[in-house]
Amino acid sequence: MPKTVLVVYAHPEPRSLTRRFVAETIQTLERQGHTVHQSDLHGMGWKATFDEDDFPGRINNDRFAFIQESEHAYRTGQQTRDVATEQRKLLDADAVIFHFPLWWFGMPAILKGWIDRVYAYGFAYGYKGAGNRYRYGDGILKGKRALLSVMVGGPAQDYAPRGINGPLDELLFPITHGALFFPGMDVLPTHAVYGTGKLDNAVAEKEIAAWRSRLDNLFDETPIPFRRQNGGEYQGNILAEEFSPGEAGLTVHIDH
Amino acid sequence: MPKTVLVVYAHPEPRSLTRRFVAETIQTLERQGHTVHQSDLHGMGWKATFDEDDFPGRINNDRFAFIQESEHAYRTGQQTRDVATEQRKLLDADAVIFHFPLWWFGMPAILKGWIDRVYAYGFAYGYKGAGNRYRYGDGILKGKRALLSVMVGGPAQDYAPRGINGPLDELLFPITHGALFFPGMDVLPTHAVYGTGKLDNAVAEKEIAAWRSRLDNLFDETPIPFRRQNGGEYQGNILAEEFSPGEAGLTVHIDH
Repeated sequence: MPKTVLVVYAHPEPRSLTRRFVAETIQTLERQGHTVHQSDLHGMGWKATFDEDDFPGRINNDRFAFIQESEHAYRTGQQTRDVATEQRKLLDADAVIFHFPLWWFGMPAILKGWIDRVYAYGFAYGYKGAGNRYRYGDGILKGKRALLSVMVGGPAQDYAPRGINGPLDELLFPITHGALFFPGMDVLPTHAVYGTGKLDNAVAEKEIAAWRSRLDNLFDETPIPFRRQNGGEYQGNILAEEFSPGEAGLTVHIDH
Repeated sequence: MPKTVLVVYAHPEPRSLTRRFVAETIQTLERQGHTVHQSDLHGMGWKATFDEDDFPGRINNDRFAFIQESEHAYRTGQQTRDVATEQRKLLDADAVIFHFPLWWFGMPAILKGWIDRVYAYGFAYGYKGAGNRYRYGDGILKGKRALLSVMVGGPAQDYAPRGINGPLDELLFPITHGALFFPGMDVLPTHAVYGTGKLDNAVAEKEIAAWRSRLDNLFDETPIPFRRQNGGEYQGNILAEEFSPGEAGLTVHIDH
């Protein structure tokens, strides 16, 4: 059944590997009959910095507080047009794919600024005005799928389970778990290409073919089994003793 | 002995808790006779997005590649003035303190964009043109100290070892290990204040007093014992078997 997919990307050079992946995504999904919407962050001149200019109609002109203004702007329809548009694109989507190069073990600032600004209070957090009641598996984006496609300059070995940079999945946990699963999305395992600084074209073509296969299964693949906040495994937001007993850290929140 | 400290901060509201901490930092360190330099990212109108405008004198006008242009601009003195200024401030500093609110489990985009843009090739990575030879304990910022002061909206419990968000130190590992230890800095344990959304003023005053004590020991405190790349514990950038045997993940890179 045809679906709608939002593709968010953060690289200004059309011939970069990131953008070749984006082109493949659009072409493959459209060929399958899906509708593709795009957020080309550099092309749009996306405003990365979240600040007073996000709130033309302030509830408190005396002291600027982000959460208070975000809640007010979202509830009263006074958000800036660019933010409201991206929220609509998220709501319209059945899946969201993010394409970006890994910079300093995270998102480029322009993409972080998309999260910071689009994820309003009442929308991505504080959903239904209920504080932290709906998150991690519940939330406004519940039922949608999310997938990171990440271009990594360094070699895979440096991101191995005992590699010096740390495992990629743990470095990206603040994004996969903290930014995507948080408002309810089902997050697929991250697709990473390593050594992109030195990739010759034959290898790049192989990597693009591998990505195409991932896309073929976008709506069938099993998501990362993050534990749901409201699934009975947490007590007071602490993982109950019987789950991953004796362990701690980011990985206990995945039901292996 | 008097030192020079760079304070980098990312909050536009002078009366926010973040900025009250910044004010305390400046006052306390100056009272101790240290020289304090500031990077008020919102006040400076810091450009968060790393893009073609960072490279007015391109080496390749045909295809835009970040690493290639960064290396060229740094080596030939063609960086933008704002970036070159921040690099000089880093080189002048004996310690660097970052003050920011935790947004979606990471830095606000404006601060991420400070890292993305200031951390040029040849400066923070590719030091001495030697690829990855100098990093994680070696690098251009070796001998300097770094410290994160983070304002966290949610309760401490959610960041406990088995708390639903994940432990704060692991969520911040891409910054402490990946952005600060990488170019050689000694990173002190992160200073976090939790529940900042609901802090009454008496509690805020107590938190500021606790921060003042941290500052008193800025140059005496023991840094996080991250393992040095060139300290003999890694073989081919994989942690050797005898260290943290049988373990994997981010935390094996700390020598507990």
